[in-house]
Amino acid sequence: MRIAVLGTGMAGRTIAARLAELGHEVAVGTRDVTVTMARTEPDRMGNPPFQTWAEAHPQVAVASFAEAAAASEIVVNATNGEGSIPALTAAGVANLAGKVLLDIANPLDFSTGMPPTLFVKDTDSLGEQIQRAFPAAKVVKTLNTMNAYLMANPKQLAGGDFSVFLSGDDPDAKATVTELLRSFGHTDVIDLGDITTARGPEMMLPIWLRLWNAVGTPMFNFKIVR
Amino acid sequence: MRIAVLGTGMAGRTIAARLAELGHEVAVGTRDVTVTMARTEPDRMGNPPFQTWAEAHPQVAVASFAEAAAASEIVVNATNGEGSIPALTAAGVANLAGKVLLDIANPLDFSTGMPPTLFVKDTDSLGEQIQRAFPAAKVVKTLNTMNAYLMANPKQLAGGDFSVFLSGDDPDAKATVTELLRSFGHTDVIDLGDITTARGPEMMLPIWLRLWNAVGTPMFNFKIVR
Repeated sequence: MRIAVLGTGMAGRTIAARLAELGHEVAVGTRDVTVTMARTEPDRMGNPPFQTWAEAHPQVAVASFAEAAAASEIVVNATNGEGSIPALTAAGVANLAGKVLLDIANPLDFSTGMPPTLFVKDTDSLGEQIQRAFPAAKVVKTLNTMNAYLMANPKQLAGGDFSVFLSGDDPDAKATVTELLRSFGHTDVIDLGDITTARGPEMMLPIWLRLWNAVGTPMFNFKIVR
Repeated sequence: MRIAVLGTGMAGRTIAARLAELGHEVAVGTRDVTVTMARTEPDRMGNPPFQTWAEAHPQVAVASFAEAAAASEIVVNATNGEGSIPALTAAGVANLAGKVLLDIANPLDFSTGMPPTLFVKDTDSLGEQIQRAFPAAKVVKTLNTMNAYLMANPKQLAGGDFSVFLSGDDPDAKATVTELLRSFGHTDVIDLGDITTARGPEMMLPIWLRLWNAVGTPMFNFKIVR
């Protein structure tokens, strides 16, 4: 399939590389291709400059948010939470209409230091904000409860014996996303319900961050034992 | 040990019965013993009246919050979240001072209907509120991420192959609670850190409630795979 991955951070890179490896036609979307490709310093999370990654992944196209979204059947929101609505706005309402919008972002607020808090929670969620802002898109919230490596390659840890959650209003979109998740190697895909259920997995970020510290690695995940 | 369990709902009953079964000297604390024992209707969660349970558990004493706390070495807060500070206030600052206060309550707000929201979250937690209100108590937040049956008898599900979290400022209190949890059958006790880390497990309630619906049973739990 033709898939746009919006966001050039570690999550976007890892998902894009995995999709390309699985045979999809992938374009990474960014605000300004020239600016993104001209950066020579590590990004604010300490990742190598995007151009280094892009050179190592010549099968992945790099395009503006709008170009990437326009050319795609599925759009992955892998931008940071605060930048998600602006990035999707730049992608364009028309370019998202009718498409599966796979949202993996978290509404993290770093403005008061570490650990970050959530800028939306409990009575609303980033997934719902995106669905309201782009009502013709088929938003499916998923994958936000694990680190990028496990999102894309779950078999790296315990043979992938853990769970991933889905929230969204459109059953067909959720079926498409489930298929994609299974192709990544996810085996326990739990459909929580409509997009309002995204509040649940988004509110797991606080314990995720504290577990990272407690277990000493970000390579852990939640398994729903039942 | 002499243990007070404050709260006569299903969580309090189940924990109290289990502690008595393990040989502890247990008193259930309630606001007004006469009123509690006189009730003949199911409680607001549909549980049988407390006196029915109390008659079936003659080895468990029933006392006022203050009497139960005064006689105990460990106090378990199994009241509902909104009633926790009032119940502990009734138990008495002096009766909690220097004691392990095992807090299993969740800050659920049912005022806007189902699913409930949280009345404190993200930048504070019920565990922290209790620690601030009773600074001489040694608050340990734990067990709030599973249903009462799994709290008390984890081996009922998948041989207990899942995780339980601890948050608290006092290392000795956490060691005491860890020992108690292991005696219940918990094997994977994860110390998240100080009492501020209680924000993480308390914020898991929204996904817990949605998972209950999605998996069709409250008999599930979170395992941290790593």
